[in-house]
Amino acid sequence: MTDAAQTLDGWYSLHDFRTVDWITWKMIPAEERQEIIQEFLGLVEKWDKTQTDKQGSHALYTIVGQKADFMMMILRPTMEELNEIETEFNKSRLAEFTLPAHSYVSVVELSNYLPAGEDPYQNPQILARLYPELPKAKYVCFYPMDKRRQGADNWYMLPMEDRRNMMRSHSMIGRQYAGKVKQIITGSVGFDDYEWGVTLFADDVLQFKKLVYEMRFDEVSARYGEFGSFFVGTLLEEDRIPAFLNV
Amino acid sequence: MTDAAQTLDGWYSLHDFRTVDWITWKMIPAEERQEIIQEFLGLVEKWDKTQTDKQGSHALYTIVGQKADFMMMILRPTMEELNEIETEFNKSRLAEFTLPAHSYVSVVELSNYLPAGEDPYQNPQILARLYPELPKAKYVCFYPMDKRRQGADNWYMLPMEDRRNMMRSHSMIGRQYAGKVKQIITGSVGFDDYEWGVTLFADDVLQFKKLVYEMRFDEVSARYGEFGSFFVGTLLEEDRIPAFLNV
Amino acid sequence: MTDAAQTLDGWYSLHDFRTVDWITWKMIPAEERQEIIQEFLGLVEKWDKTQTDKQGSHALYTIVGQKADFMMMILRPTMEELNEIETEFNKSRLAEFTLPAHSYVSVVELSNYLPAGEDPYQNPQILARLYPELPKAKYVCFYPMDKRRQGADNWYMLPMEDRRNMMRSHSMIGRQYAGKVKQIITGSVGFDDYEWGVTLFADDVLQFKKLVYEMRFDEVSARYGEFGSFFVGTLLEEDRIPAFLNV
Amino acid sequence: MTDAAQTLDGWYSLHDFRTVDWITWKMIPAEERQEIIQEFLGLVEKWDKTQTDKQGSHALYTIVGQKADFMMMILRPTMEELNEIETEFNKSRLAEFTLPAHSYVSVVELSNYLPAGEDPYQNPQILARLYPELPKAKYVCFYPMDKRRQGADNWYMLPMEDRRNMMRSHSMIGRQYAGKVKQIITGSVGFDDYEWGVTLFADDVLQFKKLVYEMRFDEVSARYGEFGSFFVGTLLEEDRIPAFLNV
Amino acid sequence: MTDAAQTLDGWYSLHDFRTVDWITWKMIPAEERQEIIQEFLGLVEKWDKTQTDKQGSHALYTIVGQKADFMMMILRPTMEELNEIETEFNKSRLAEFTLPAHSYVSVVELSNYLPAGEDPYQNPQILARLYPELPKAKYVCFYPMDKRRQGADNWYMLPMEDRRNMMRSHSMIGRQYAGKVKQIITGSVGFDDYEWGVTLFADDVLQFKKLVYEMRFDEVSARYGEFGSFFVGTLLEEDRIPAFLNV
Repeated sequence: MTDAAQTLDGWYSLHDFRTVDWITWKMIPAEERQEIIQEFLGLVEKWDKTQTDKQGSHALYTIVGQKADFMMMILRPTMEELNEIETEFNKSRLAEFTLPAHSYVSVVELSNYLPAGEDPYQNPQILARLYPELPKAKYVCFYPMDKRRQGADNWYMLPMEDRRNMMRSHSMIGRQYAGKVKQIITGSVGFDDYEWGVTLFADDVLQFKKLVYEMRFDEVSARYGEFGSFFVGTLLEEDRIPAFLNV
Repeated sequence: MTDAAQTLDGWYSLHDFRTVDWITWKMIPAEERQEIIQEFLGLVEKWDKTQTDKQGSHALYTIVGQKADFMMMILRPTMEELNEIETEFNKSRLAEFTLPAHSYVSVVELSNYLPAGEDPYQNPQILARLYPELPKAKYVCFYPMDKRRQGADNWYMLPMEDRRNMMRSHSMIGRQYAGKVKQIITGSVGFDDYEWGVTLFADDVLQFKKLVYEMRFDEVSARYGEFGSFFVGTLLEEDRIPAFLNV
Repeated sequence: MTDAAQTLDGWYSLHDFRTVDWITWKMIPAEERQEIIQEFLGLVEKWDKTQTDKQGSHALYTIVGQKADFMMMILRPTMEELNEIETEFNKSRLAEFTLPAHSYVSVVELSNYLPAGEDPYQNPQILARLYPELPKAKYVCFYPMDKRRQGADNWYMLPMEDRRNMMRSHSMIGRQYAGKVKQIITGSVGFDDYEWGVTLFADDVLQFKKLVYEMRFDEVSARYGEFGSFFVGTLLEEDRIPAFLNV
Repeated sequence: MTDAAQTLDGWYSLHDFRTVDWITWKMIPAEERQEIIQEFLGLVEKWDKTQTDKQGSHALYTIVGQKADFMMMILRPTMEELNEIETEFNKSRLAEFTLPAHSYVSVVELSNYLPAGEDPYQNPQILARLYPELPKAKYVCFYPMDKRRQGADNWYMLPMEDRRNMMRSHSMIGRQYAGKVKQIITGSVGFDDYEWGVTLFADDVLQFKKLVYEMRFDEVSARYGEFGSFFVGTLLEEDRIPAFLNV
Repeated sequence: MTDAAQTLDGWYSLHDFRTVDWITWKMIPAEERQEIIQEFLGLVEKWDKTQTDKQGSHALYTIVGQKADFMMMILRPTMEELNEIETEFNKSRLAEFTLPAHSYVSVVELSNYLPAGEDPYQNPQILARLYPELPKAKYVCFYPMDKRRQGADNWYMLPMEDRRNMMRSHSMIGRQYAGKVKQIITGSVGFDDYEWGVTLFADDVLQFKKLVYEMRFDEVSARYGEFGSFFVGTLLEEDRIPAFLNV
């Protein structure tokens, strides 16, 4: 018997951050820019169809600060589909005017620090969380994280029972934000440089700060959390794309 | 009840550092440069108006050393406005001659390690600090920081009472610099890579060194402070912009 | 007598990750692109012949996310051959449209934490592992790793017996994935920045996450593992190359 | 009363490292290169005048290895002057053929771990050290450093008395190199990423290695020193500049 | 009396790693390429003459993997000569088609953890090691290293006697590789970012891995070694240069 928590895994996920090369974008004729925007909107329409068919989901956000200009978060049933979407974007005309800024490969994950006896894959609530439709919240926050393995603060050397208790108390904090912040955890062990990605959605951007700050005092984060870069962005609705790219 | 200190949050903040691409800037005709400077001054005028209307504030500084050539610090009531200002600058002609050097996304924050009983949002002094007009001081200093979580030096595992006492003694040092250094703390948990940004304003640049050095001996910094890059700059008054960009 | 575990060493290995410069690739005539693809397929054909002759092996995968677009893993009897293949690719026309993204130099290694008495180089099973034909699995996962030398967690200060016991328990986990995940360990002490490279092959990409996550709770990884960047990719079969490069 | 050592602060300092873009430099006509060199020598002449007037000092060195091609170290009474000199260089024609490689912003500093009672600013020897004329030594060595704050090795948590004793013994080592190595300490707390810059001048380059190595065994460095990148260079006398830039 | 081990110092050393820009290299006419190769061979001839005159030595290796394409290791009696050679290469035509990839500045060093009484500079064997002719071995391995100063593992706080004993046992491992691996230690305290550079030469590349791995279990490395990037390469004999650069 292993000490690893069992996970439930849903759709594969690609966070794809891009920086717009405004200089070259401004160089081409307005007409050409319109064609390129239309081509990109065509891609998004395909993604919309997939989402309507419940075969995946996606979200577009503009990113605040210089880390990136926009972010595409894509969920799909297979890694191949992520690879194809990424390559299709790379071959698109809009990609000629963007630079890769950051990406993250993971899979929607529910951690099974739960009482035994239930078959989680029969639970409609759990299925909805493994194969979620990403919300159209006004704001997004993304960051990757590890559980620390450092001297006396080594998460992976703790007994399962201790980890379960800490995670339970941790999730209590999350629950207080129910209705304010929607959280999607994606596992990336073996897929990318951190162990998890955390994507938060909210209509009040301050709730990201409150939630992450409050959790930081919880032992799971305080002693065992290692965090990567934080990205914060505002919803880029499809009908706002032409304005965003208008120069 | 949580152990997290309650925070008061004011305007959202973007520190936007840029490097001038002097080579291409010199390549274009002087006349065109004048037009571009005028366009940029038009942006700044809009920001001035916003500041006069008390709907935000901003500050422009040239940065010493190679980390950047100038810095725009922008305060606004919403994250969307920061995003729009940044995008508007990116689409401006001046941006064609600058490179992103660094940015920081945060929100003006007052930490509530204070006696209970008072409603801080009714306090005019506190409101003035949450929604400040940035001073026209001769010098600026910016750096991000974290509270350490490392072995026995883990700020987030300390009892609230200990943290409060240490912060009180810490703020005593700051008070000795009253009138010499104005300090604006911005919180960035969930928004950017460190937990706080510190922006200092002074008419005597040496006071930055004295203040930061003295604080470093205080337990809060000595044991619990983790610091990012430091940027120091001199005031770029609007009427000095054409001279700064004159080649 | 030394405390170093004896290793068995097979073919030298180069992991060569490349990013496609789609912008310039799209700029040239379709005909020219076809010629370039043909030239690259000619290279791959040579590698196929070498593999048929059992003088080496290779694998091509497209990489998910922005870390790279594709990866060539090459095994050869000598370091010179790796150097020549790399240089030949660099001089090829396709290389004009790719950027180096990452590389890793190592040698197929079996760690001899085994009972004494046997001459491993007489063992056909061991020979097959030292000079393997890389499988055509649907997915690949690559990451480099070190054994930690940090304070009380110093692998290299442990008695051989302890290391052997931990490695034995560690390999037990691997065995549970027999038939699901094929693992090739390459040693890179003295050759590249980490001590080992781990290349995993599977037809179910989720098995990478399960395997690496489960191992992380094992003391060898939990206390002594230091991991570099993770790359995950999908098989790029030769007849899929033209489609992958079609724009 | 604070535990911070009092410092004496002199001229502000900019270390400005540049890499020559030899490719574009070779592309322009020899005549144009001569004009550009003359323009740069004009800048240096101005700096010479300032030095003669005892209003600052400067030093030019070529740097060995790929970190940079040359370094300008500039001392001035105000931060504005450093900013202006840097900008003037950036706007000069020579700058079109150089790339920023590294920079460091600090202020000449004497640490007052000294007996009380004396007014150091009345001491001519101290004034000469706060406002030094940089020597024309054959070699320069520059590196930034911090005092460590890590677990049990936390300089800033030590009693003043212990720090004073350690610094005294540390300076004893320095004194043994009197006449061989001239050392200028510049403080950069609040100005740049490390706490101090160390600039060494010598006519025998080996003395840098001997001094830094010997000091490393001293407790101040051994337990409390954190070092950044080291740069070593050879004197670039003004009349050697045309030859250095001759292609 | 100091605790620092006395060192014997010989020739100054520059490791200069370069990446070939194959794209632009292929763009110019074959004839021009031949001229450029001839110019570079002229440089190498000068170095050969210096080596014949025993006024220095050099070695050329192609590097495996993407870290660099080739490496020039240069030994000379003065730092100025290294600086001149580097600048001469930078001004050469071949440099227009290479990019700096990495460099290391140091000095050939013998560590004097030896019995007293002998004047090492009178010892011909020691002189041969301080002013070595670099061997034409088939393979090279280069990496920089520090002695650790971290918590309880602080090399520089150990008594001289302990350091001497550990170094003696360490050198025993090296001796077992006599005839298989030639090792040149260069000191870089005060010259570059690590304290030492290690350059290994062998005709069997696997010996690098065996030697470095075996040493890693020795306390000096296990507890006190901090290692930088590893580079491995194959001999680039002068008459192989045209073929290497042939496109």
